Amino acid sequence: MSGDVIIDSKVLREFTTEVFDRAGLERGAAETEAEVLVWANLRGVDSHGVLRIPLYLEWVDTGIMNTSPDIRVESETAATLVVEGDFAFGPVVTTMAMERTIAKAREAGMAWCLIRNTTHQGAMAYYSLMAARAGMAGIAIVCSPPNMAPAGAKAAGVHNSPISMAVPGDRLGPLVLDMATSVAAFGKLSLAIDQGASIPDTWALDANGVPTTDPNQADILLPSGGPKGSGMAMLFECLTSLMAGNALLAPTLLGTRDVRRGMQNSVLAAVDIGTFTDVDEYKREVDALIEGIKGLPRADGVDEIMVPGEPEDRVYQQRLADGIPLPPGTVDSLRDAAQRFEIPLPAELR
Amino acid sequence: MSGDVIIDSKVLREFTTEVFDRAGLERGAAETEAEVLVWANLRGVDSHGVLRIPLYLEWVDTGIMNTSPDIRVESETAATLVVEGDFAFGPVVTTMAMERTIAKAREAGMAWCLIRNTTHQGAMAYYSLMAARAGMAGIAIVCSPPNMAPAGAKAAGVHNSPISMAVPGDRLGPLVLDMATSVAAFGKLSLAIDQGASIPDTWALDANGVPTTDPNQADILLPSGGPKGSGMAMLFECLTSLMAGNALLAPTLLGTRDVRRGMQNSVLAAVDIGTFTDVDEYKREVDALIEGIKGLPRADGVDEIMVPGEPEDRVYQQRLADGIPLPPGTVDSLRDAAQRFEIPLPAELR
Repeated sequence: MSGDVIIDSKVLREFTTEVFDRAGLERGAAETEAEVLVWANLRGVDSHGVLRIPLYLEWVDTGIMNTSPDIRVESETAATLVVEGDFAFGPVVTTMAMERTIAKAREAGMAWCLIRNTTHQGAMAYYSLMAARAGMAGIAIVCSPPNMAPAGAKAAGVHNSPISMAVPGDRLGPLVLDMATSVAAFGKLSLAIDQGASIPDTWALDANGVPTTDPNQADILLPSGGPKGSGMAMLFECLTSLMAGNALLAPTLLGTRDVRRGMQNSVLAAVDIGTFTDVDEYKREVDALIEGIKGLPRADGVDEIMVPGEPEDRVYQQRLADGIPLPPGTVDSLRDAAQRFEIPLPAELR
Repeated sequence: MSGDVIIDSKVLREFTTEVFDRAGLERGAAETEAEVLVWANLRGVDSHGVLRIPLYLEWVDTGIMNTSPDIRVESETAATLVVEGDFAFGPVVTTMAMERTIAKAREAGMAWCLIRNTTHQGAMAYYSLMAARAGMAGIAIVCSPPNMAPAGAKAAGVHNSPISMAVPGDRLGPLVLDMATSVAAFGKLSLAIDQGASIPDTWALDANGVPTTDPNQADILLPSGGPKGSGMAMLFECLTSLMAGNALLAPTLLGTRDVRRGMQNSVLAAVDIGTFTDVDEYKREVDALIEGIKGLPRADGVDEIMVPGEPEDRVYQQRLADGIPLPPGTVDSLRDAAQRFEIPLPAELR
């Protein structure tokens, strides 16, 4: 959009690393956090990119995010592990957990990892794609406190828990789905606010539980497919938070326990393709599936049939070459961070 | 509905067992098939109940379903197994596979099972609930040849692959989701036809790829949430069929291989709750979640907030006590089967 600043992804990554380094993270952790945020920007998922920096810094200041976490593998079996995140920055604990999950899947054929007490993990596709790059199918699910009304309710009761699944392709892949269980994610509401646009009344309720077309009034998300989206969200809480002994929804709804703000639980899975079939053949089959789907007759008004992850990958290629556009609000918050930590501001942001 | 015959579930199960016994299944296999079909009728999921009998008998006659399958565990690791179904009746191979999956999860913490070459498996919730009854979270996914248009297409390219997930509760559970990735399953279209009702134009396309409100013209299902439903369906094909080296979608779309009618691949997973947390405490947390959700303020016009599996469980309790209503068309097909195999017709069906 006009008014946007264009910045090279490498420059933005280095700047972001510096911010988190000065905020107290170990150098490697700061690099990981910057990598995952800027990766989201590269893919056009700006809601999960560097615009989160001011919120994260606030959460460090208020003790919600832990810059010196004691991340530990709490228990293990042949195919499972439980990782206590100690309120680490999400990407720091989740990349470590997915690496362990992949290593375990290499031995056991598949592996299943619970992460307890992480904070915001960024775009979940990052982690499912780690598995895809290792020749595996990857799955990543996250649960947070309520922000979505389950089917039949007019108040928040579940989280719009996203699920990401990825598999590797050959020439055409990977195929990577990353979807919230709500009709629209909060990122789409922010975009509508920025654009001064109204939203369909099927996206969200206002604070009083009434459907709204004003994104500024949108307070409670609505589930995709009604009972399907809210059903998935409930079951995801059971697969993650309840399994990790760290319920997030019921304690909030029933007032039985305080739930710390920004707290998340997660499950990661990796399925080792080579355990079941020939990996190269599998990748060619993924390509064939993509080719078959893209070659279908198109619905009216559709120029091209896109497969999961394809729109994001196109933005990625373009932004990698041309730079990442940042709106004025985001640029301001990066300037604030630079000033606070006395970090030299990249030329593009001056 | 008026004209329906009411039959006791036990009587219907015994009759159905007899039908499949005479059709050539081993006695135990016939009992399993009858159990899974009548269970669906008890839960009100009549589309997956005994109305399938004539189709199954036709498929036995034409060699699509194998009454004497060589079901075998083809490979195993600590946490995975691959079961070759040899075109067995779905419930026969799937109950066996889920039992093995549960046993393996007991050792490894979780287990993941691929089933290759099964036929129609009935209601997938049956299998996820087997895990829930064993103190585990259960997941069951199935893929079949194309019947749903992916987002952007006006022809079938994916299957409306259902996923079921179940976890045990204490007094209130289990919580069991069983959802197709389409807006509506074919069962809902059949119901609209029976009722002479029209359908929303968001449910299906006709054979020419045009949205239709006439259930008789509905030919191609539409995905729930557009790219969400079709994305899940594509990834489910990758997790099941491609992993089992038995692609169903791409060969149909590209015409590269013949795909046998009625063929399905499936993945089952069981996550052993006791490996991660206290099972009784987990069940109480599931109850708390159900209680929290049901206690939310209700949307306008909603009498009661229902959680996944609750509507079906109510029908189950009622039909277990009062009997299963069968419409005239289903009764006729059961009479035909009785006549063909010279089986005494239950009094209710005479």
